[in-house]
Amino acid sequence: MSGRLNVGLIGLGRLGHVYAQNLAQRVPVARLVAVADQKAGLAASVAAEFSVPKSYERHEDLLKDRDVDAVVIITSTSTHKQLVIDAAASRKAIFCEKPMALSLDDAAEMLRTAEKAGVFFQMAFQRRFDAGYVAAKKKIEEGVIGTPVLMTSTSRDPFPPPLEFCNPKVSGGLIADMGIHDFDVARMFMGDVKSVYAIGGTLAFPEMKTVGDIDNAVINMTFENGTLGVVQLSRNAVFGYDIRGEVWGTKGSIQIGYFRQTPILVMTEAGITHDVVPYFMQRFETAYLTQIQDFVNKARSGQKPSVTGHDAIAAMRISLAAGRSCQEGRPVAIRQMDGVSSEISAGR
Amino acid sequence: MSGRLNVGLIGLGRLGHVYAQNLAQRVPVARLVAVADQKAGLAASVAAEFSVPKSYERHEDLLKDRDVDAVVIITSTSTHKQLVIDAAASRKAIFCEKPMALSLDDAAEMLRTAEKAGVFFQMAFQRRFDAGYVAAKKKIEEGVIGTPVLMTSTSRDPFPPPLEFCNPKVSGGLIADMGIHDFDVARMFMGDVKSVYAIGGTLAFPEMKTVGDIDNAVINMTFENGTLGVVQLSRNAVFGYDIRGEVWGTKGSIQIGYFRQTPILVMTEAGITHDVVPYFMQRFETAYLTQIQDFVNKARSGQKPSVTGHDAIAAMRISLAAGRSCQEGRPVAIRQMDGVSSEISAGR
Amino acid sequence: MSGRLNVGLIGLGRLGHVYAQNLAQRVPVARLVAVADQKAGLAASVAAEFSVPKSYERHEDLLKDRDVDAVVIITSTSTHKQLVIDAAASRKAIFCEKPMALSLDDAAEMLRTAEKAGVFFQMAFQRRFDAGYVAAKKKIEEGVIGTPVLMTSTSRDPFPPPLEFCNPKVSGGLIADMGIHDFDVARMFMGDVKSVYAIGGTLAFPEMKTVGDIDNAVINMTFENGTLGVVQLSRNAVFGYDIRGEVWGTKGSIQIGYFRQTPILVMTEAGITHDVVPYFMQRFETAYLTQIQDFVNKARSGQKPSVTGHDAIAAMRISLAAGRSCQEGRPVAIRQMDGVSSEISAGR
Amino acid sequence: MSGRLNVGLIGLGRLGHVYAQNLAQRVPVARLVAVADQKAGLAASVAAEFSVPKSYERHEDLLKDRDVDAVVIITSTSTHKQLVIDAAASRKAIFCEKPMALSLDDAAEMLRTAEKAGVFFQMAFQRRFDAGYVAAKKKIEEGVIGTPVLMTSTSRDPFPPPLEFCNPKVSGGLIADMGIHDFDVARMFMGDVKSVYAIGGTLAFPEMKTVGDIDNAVINMTFENGTLGVVQLSRNAVFGYDIRGEVWGTKGSIQIGYFRQTPILVMTEAGITHDVVPYFMQRFETAYLTQIQDFVNKARSGQKPSVTGHDAIAAMRISLAAGRSCQEGRPVAIRQMDGVSSEISAGR
Repeated sequence: MSGRLNVGLIGLGRLGHVYAQNLAQRVPVARLVAVADQKAGLAASVAAEFSVPKSYERHEDLLKDRDVDAVVIITSTSTHKQLVIDAAASRKAIFCEKPMALSLDDAAEMLRTAEKAGVFFQMAFQRRFDAGYVAAKKKIEEGVIGTPVLMTSTSRDPFPPPLEFCNPKVSGGLIADMGIHDFDVARMFMGDVKSVYAIGGTLAFPEMKTVGDIDNAVINMTFENGTLGVVQLSRNAVFGYDIRGEVWGTKGSIQIGYFRQTPILVMTEAGITHDVVPYFMQRFETAYLTQIQDFVNKARSGQKPSVTGHDAIAAMRISLAAGRSCQEGRPVAIRQMDGVSSEISAGR
Repeated sequence: MSGRLNVGLIGLGRLGHVYAQNLAQRVPVARLVAVADQKAGLAASVAAEFSVPKSYERHEDLLKDRDVDAVVIITSTSTHKQLVIDAAASRKAIFCEKPMALSLDDAAEMLRTAEKAGVFFQMAFQRRFDAGYVAAKKKIEEGVIGTPVLMTSTSRDPFPPPLEFCNPKVSGGLIADMGIHDFDVARMFMGDVKSVYAIGGTLAFPEMKTVGDIDNAVINMTFENGTLGVVQLSRNAVFGYDIRGEVWGTKGSIQIGYFRQTPILVMTEAGITHDVVPYFMQRFETAYLTQIQDFVNKARSGQKPSVTGHDAIAAMRISLAAGRSCQEGRPVAIRQMDGVSSEISAGR
Repeated sequence: MSGRLNVGLIGLGRLGHVYAQNLAQRVPVARLVAVADQKAGLAASVAAEFSVPKSYERHEDLLKDRDVDAVVIITSTSTHKQLVIDAAASRKAIFCEKPMALSLDDAAEMLRTAEKAGVFFQMAFQRRFDAGYVAAKKKIEEGVIGTPVLMTSTSRDPFPPPLEFCNPKVSGGLIADMGIHDFDVARMFMGDVKSVYAIGGTLAFPEMKTVGDIDNAVINMTFENGTLGVVQLSRNAVFGYDIRGEVWGTKGSIQIGYFRQTPILVMTEAGITHDVVPYFMQRFETAYLTQIQDFVNKARSGQKPSVTGHDAIAAMRISLAAGRSCQEGRPVAIRQMDGVSSEISAGR
Repeated sequence: MSGRLNVGLIGLGRLGHVYAQNLAQRVPVARLVAVADQKAGLAASVAAEFSVPKSYERHEDLLKDRDVDAVVIITSTSTHKQLVIDAAASRKAIFCEKPMALSLDDAAEMLRTAEKAGVFFQMAFQRRFDAGYVAAKKKIEEGVIGTPVLMTSTSRDPFPPPLEFCNPKVSGGLIADMGIHDFDVARMFMGDVKSVYAIGGTLAFPEMKTVGDIDNAVINMTFENGTLGVVQLSRNAVFGYDIRGEVWGTKGSIQIGYFRQTPILVMTEAGITHDVVPYFMQRFETAYLTQIQDFVNKARSGQKPSVTGHDAIAAMRISLAAGRSCQEGRPVAIRQMDGVSSEISAGR
């Protein structure tokens, strides 16, 4: 494809704003032609900020815009299903933020619809585009650590989301909302998961109990190939954003991640100190850019998407199994999630 | 007590040799008066090396020696029970290497016998004396990280033990032999464990299957107070000895451990590189010394032992529950181990 | 000022290309309206790449362009003088890459001309915009390390520049070309320099002797306030780009810099290893962007430039004094450089 | 030699006490048979602490003791000359703490006397026995960093010594007292020094001016082989003991040293923090032991001493030249120190 890809962006919250900036200023082969957000005036304001020709308050209007080749969906999870289905009907290429949907049934329907329509459909998992995860994957494929036998992935937020978001009916709760990144990373490094066992507790923010969420969890995974994994999740990394991973092999190990944000070390009577990456915007700033560049390139050239709906559903199934394991106090096999249709939307 | 403590040391293998040197040269208030080992000539040779007055080939002879106030038992686990019972009968103060015994029944009998005899009885868990673990404990008690909500402990050996030792009937296998340190650390930081769930596999050294052992494991723990824990064990840290821990609290976290052995960094075209602590002798050299100094001081002064038989049994119960969980694929409550009498010696 | 600043960019080499991308895509309040380079076709190609309306092969033509409000000069040092003088005559705001000129006389004339014309004139020293140097400066001003008493700054290139560039008549050689950044940093943290003493040698690349340059140098500085400094320069950091600094105070110290480029650690039998920042483009990518954003903002709003011609001349005087010291084997007072008119262009 | 070496220790201050403990408890082939200190009661007390058979208040008495094969001299520098001369007359093997003497004349006389007497004479430079410096030396000899072209060595004390000690007439002042370690390390890595240039100031502790000392210094060195060096010295490392070194070569670099004393990292809202090695006793604890073991082994076996009086004199000459350079504001060639007889004792 020789021309630029005309992109419409739906959802202009904090993360949507990052996408707007990236698409408008940092992806030369994309042209951000339209933005939409239901909040009155927001789309117009963002359009002005980034010289975007058109702005809409109704998503549907953007989806009908014939100048738009591709849509980038950064809205709240509960809206993803309808938007993807409508976008497929409008034959747009689709990029959708994670998590894909609030239930496996919804996700499956979205995927079926996109596949039937034959539209390009890429899901978001920005860690797959982070320099650390990419380099780790490459080293592993080169055999640097032999055969992987275990992976660990730890995600810890510097503060909890608003209480209403914690509600598992809205976000899926800690395990589904945060863990889904780690479960995707798990699949990226080790393959499909066979069973999970999760423990968790509301240990730092008692008020979360009122909406039925937990703030810390540990999830064991056994992979189909017999290897092992463990995911740790927390909402109380009060010092900053704590994202770590390790792939442990027969001939060595790769650790992924970093903590220091500003390149200084301060040495005083209080010891030797450095600051910490504050939050996901900073930690994955480049990954978000690389990811959307990848989408634009792939959608323009008709290559296969880097992250598919199948990937997203696979990660969802793990997180649903982990949520159920945590609730029921027993290991849960992933195949047991087959008949699960509305796990999250029905509350955990 | 004003005088020095006359110590007899039983078991002069690699670790026993470290104890001999520490007791002979680095614990001023101890006098190493006798050494014993069943291997012909070994006791005499070690006695000569460290100017120890007496040497024995039969443990019983050392235990009968009236010059000996206290015995330090560094023999193989299977001999611990008889030695402790005999030492108690001889009214010696007792220091016993971990693990305490091959079954909970044996351990309980040892503890009962020592308590009835009223002898001083201290178990070995050298991590409790390591500067890192001690400092972490102190910081936590000072409230530096708020309330602990999760602990992790990872132990990875640079190579597997001899195959015959891996046999769970001999050593208890990976979970009992290595994990017991982590389970003790878990209790030190978080309190008693309520239940465990373990997964594992023979992933790096297929030959271990022939003796029924695994080489990698992940064990989740839920503590009685609702907090969480996760232990990782491995035999294939081919680069060195990999011992890490973290205590995760509501106001911060403490990471414990280090990797670099030699204080140099090498910067070449291959990157920036440092070496790794090779093995437990190097990592815990000072902790072993501090531990035996502590025993000698406590035994001389009649204070309570720093690590009791109850501690050792509690750690054993966790490791037995973890072993069973790994075998049976289900979470195991610690209280379910009450009636377990010969878990390890009967094979797992 | 409400409108965007129309910028013309002169010099489209490797670094010029970075400026083109930044100005075209990442500085919203700037509009890159023209580019120029003497190399046939280069300006047209860059103009096409970044959708720049006009391109020129003759610098003079860009300077005459009435659509251009400001010029960014990234050409070779020997052309700076004429371009700045012409730009001042055309009443453009001016941003000029370092080093300012090949002689103090030239630099002084450039500065006088710009001041007389009353045009905005900002010099480039990107380290002043790097997060590490900025944070260090802020911490120092907050009193975190007490009163600074010593600063160190080390700059080491991963490979030498082309031999013809090393020629002191072209680039000023190691001390003038590389050291000028460190001398500016020195002034930023400690104030004006009183005297310098430099030693150096052609120790890694004997062929540099043929053009009269050295590849390693150490320069001591005494500041006017009595504090101390030391700059280290090298061309043979074969592992990567090695930029470090420290400000040492009465109550502590701040170290600036980092080495690892990719956020992974590789642990194998070869030890624990990470990669290294390859070169200045990577190390200062964000600083170059922040710097040109600062120029655009300051030039639009009529604020004082962040880095003045006086700053650039002050750094040049230190580097010239250091070069002379290295040649003559004696300390050189900065005030001795007053009458030096053509130090560099006459060769060292 | 088959028997143990009977050692007498003179000087039982803080460092002398370390030697007493090492010799009494940690060097099996040595027997600490006598200790001496002029402070009333100190020798008797130390003798009791370490079960040393004899104690003296007069050094002369220990030197006359026929049971003593070797003397270890840890007294103040001003007494070294007489003690070494007397020990040589008594035909004892000699180990002498640094610095050797307060003047080159004295040092030369000591060396001549020891050589004439044919006694074993080893000087102390404990860094030569530190694992970091030893490993760096070995890597360099293996060619890991190519040909060394520059070395740096930084020594920073956590607090200044007592004011009376700072007096250059007593200790030689900052450059002679602290720097001599760095100058020895310089020779160890790079060979003999050709000239030095030093700058310094009394910047953190103004009271030091009253005794004529400085608290911070930077010393450039040019080696006979054309390579470069830079030493930094400071008394105000308020956070701990700051000892660093680097050897910079054509194919890479080795950094030596470490900061963290306790193996924990604390992560709180204040950032990620670790403690710092407090002082030389901790940093070089093992090196002091290894050094005295080396002396005992070499003295027993009649091998050549690891560090000779020539080495000590060479380091003194550098420090004297650096002191003079700092005073006179000019580079000083080492060969100019030949005729210097009483540099330090006459004040700098």
